[in-house]
Amino acid sequence: MNVLIVHCHPEPHSFNAGLTGIAKESLECEGNEVVMSDLYAEEFDPVEGQYHYRARLRQDYFQALDEQRHHFDRNALPPDIQREIARLEWADLIILQFPLWWHGVPAMLKGWFDRVFVYGGLYTGSRRFDRGPLLGRRAICSVTTGAPEATFGPFGRSGDIANLMWPIHCSLYYVGLSVLSPHLTFGVQGGGLSYQQEAEFRHHLENAKQYWHDRITSIDQETPIPMSGWADWDAQGVLRSDHPLRWRA
Amino acid sequence: MNVLIVHCHPEPHSFNAGLTGIAKESLECEGNEVVMSDLYAEEFDPVEGQYHYRARLRQDYFQALDEQRHHFDRNALPPDIQREIARLEWADLIILQFPLWWHGVPAMLKGWFDRVFVYGGLYTGSRRFDRGPLLGRRAICSVTTGAPEATFGPFGRSGDIANLMWPIHCSLYYVGLSVLSPHLTFGVQGGGLSYQQEAEFRHHLENAKQYWHDRITSIDQETPIPMSGWADWDAQGVLRSDHPLRWRA
Repeated sequence: MNVLIVHCHPEPHSFNAGLTGIAKESLECEGNEVVMSDLYAEEFDPVEGQYHYRARLRQDYFQALDEQRHHFDRNALPPDIQREIARLEWADLIILQFPLWWHGVPAMLKGWFDRVFVYGGLYTGSRRFDRGPLLGRRAICSVTTGAPEATFGPFGRSGDIANLMWPIHCSLYYVGLSVLSPHLTFGVQGGGLSYQQEAEFRHHLENAKQYWHDRITSIDQETPIPMSGWADWDAQGVLRSDHPLRWRA
Repeated sequence: MNVLIVHCHPEPHSFNAGLTGIAKESLECEGNEVVMSDLYAEEFDPVEGQYHYRARLRQDYFQALDEQRHHFDRNALPPDIQREIARLEWADLIILQFPLWWHGVPAMLKGWFDRVFVYGGLYTGSRRFDRGPLLGRRAICSVTTGAPEATFGPFGRSGDIANLMWPIHCSLYYVGLSVLSPHLTFGVQGGGLSYQQEAEFRHHLENAKQYWHDRITSIDQETPIPMSGWADWDAQGVLRSDHPLRWRA
């Protein structure tokens, strides 16, 4: 299969880089093709703004979605965005590798969503969710956290990780992707200043790489997170009142 | 009181700009001082990366948190970050005004969290949550959405807005801020191409401005969202097993 790894970390020798490295190696070893979007290395610009659009639909007022559609329709999107869309359309599996910063994706990766998931191209009003253009492809987030696992449980002070991942999964599903359960590596500290810190970092990383390798090499057998779709919703985009998933007052 | 408005929208005549304008006007009219961080206008750089740090603790390995603390301690943070921190410390109320993009804040605003909420300065291991440095100050998100209100309910396909706001509120609370219930304006479309679209935009905006004005001018009487704190958690950062908010298996 074709795999796109969207890698987002500023340090080339980071824990995240170690996980991306083992994923690439393991997947290629099994005969898959892997392409990387290394956002920091490629100096991806995460800011959605008017300066990206050279064939403006309107000069007087910047409406991002209108310009996205207008430029998509004319093959006039910026080259980096065209490249990212081509990679997404090529991929069977998309891996997002990132550290959890401030309860979400780093700005660099947030901007990848803001700029790459263009209106008119990766979704329209009628082509979204289980009718989205990327239907049939799968996505998985591989996430490192600084805080330990216990704090990310339903009663933990870091916030329930299921809630923190929810907005990200919603965005992936919006364009038609089937989202796999996230791969979480908790309690990751950066490579340390002392010998002991460095040894702990190495030890943690080697374990995490093994665990990620084991998962990634059998990932084609996994079942995506179930999501509701068009058949489940009424005309207002709300779960039908007779839907079995719905509680009633 | 002193109010900081962190405004994040690329279009100066946007709906969001209208809301920020009325908030500033209404608050100043009542004798408050208002300072703006207009992130797009100031060309804020949302990317956390090594190039921001000129007095590196380590040249060989970029660990964002280590460099943040190191530079904070030496007054060597970039000028834009020093300025944002000074504004936060000056403010009694912080308003974040932004459109919901891809189930969260725009990358520009996400980077404001990533870069401004520095380790060693706005939090440490022991100075977080209800012991955070910004304790006693309040924050509110004023958010516009493209999709209509019904889709953001618990059964809506846009995702429950309470879940989507949760990570953002967690981040604000992490540095000690008391978070007010968000101010939500649903179904916002950009200024339109046709006369009718433009008239609808104006009508919606005028209503939304009135509603925001009414809220902002009595906001000092509001009670923040209740959050658990240090007294509620055990040594692992988890709600104590005898806590009344906790269910038991």
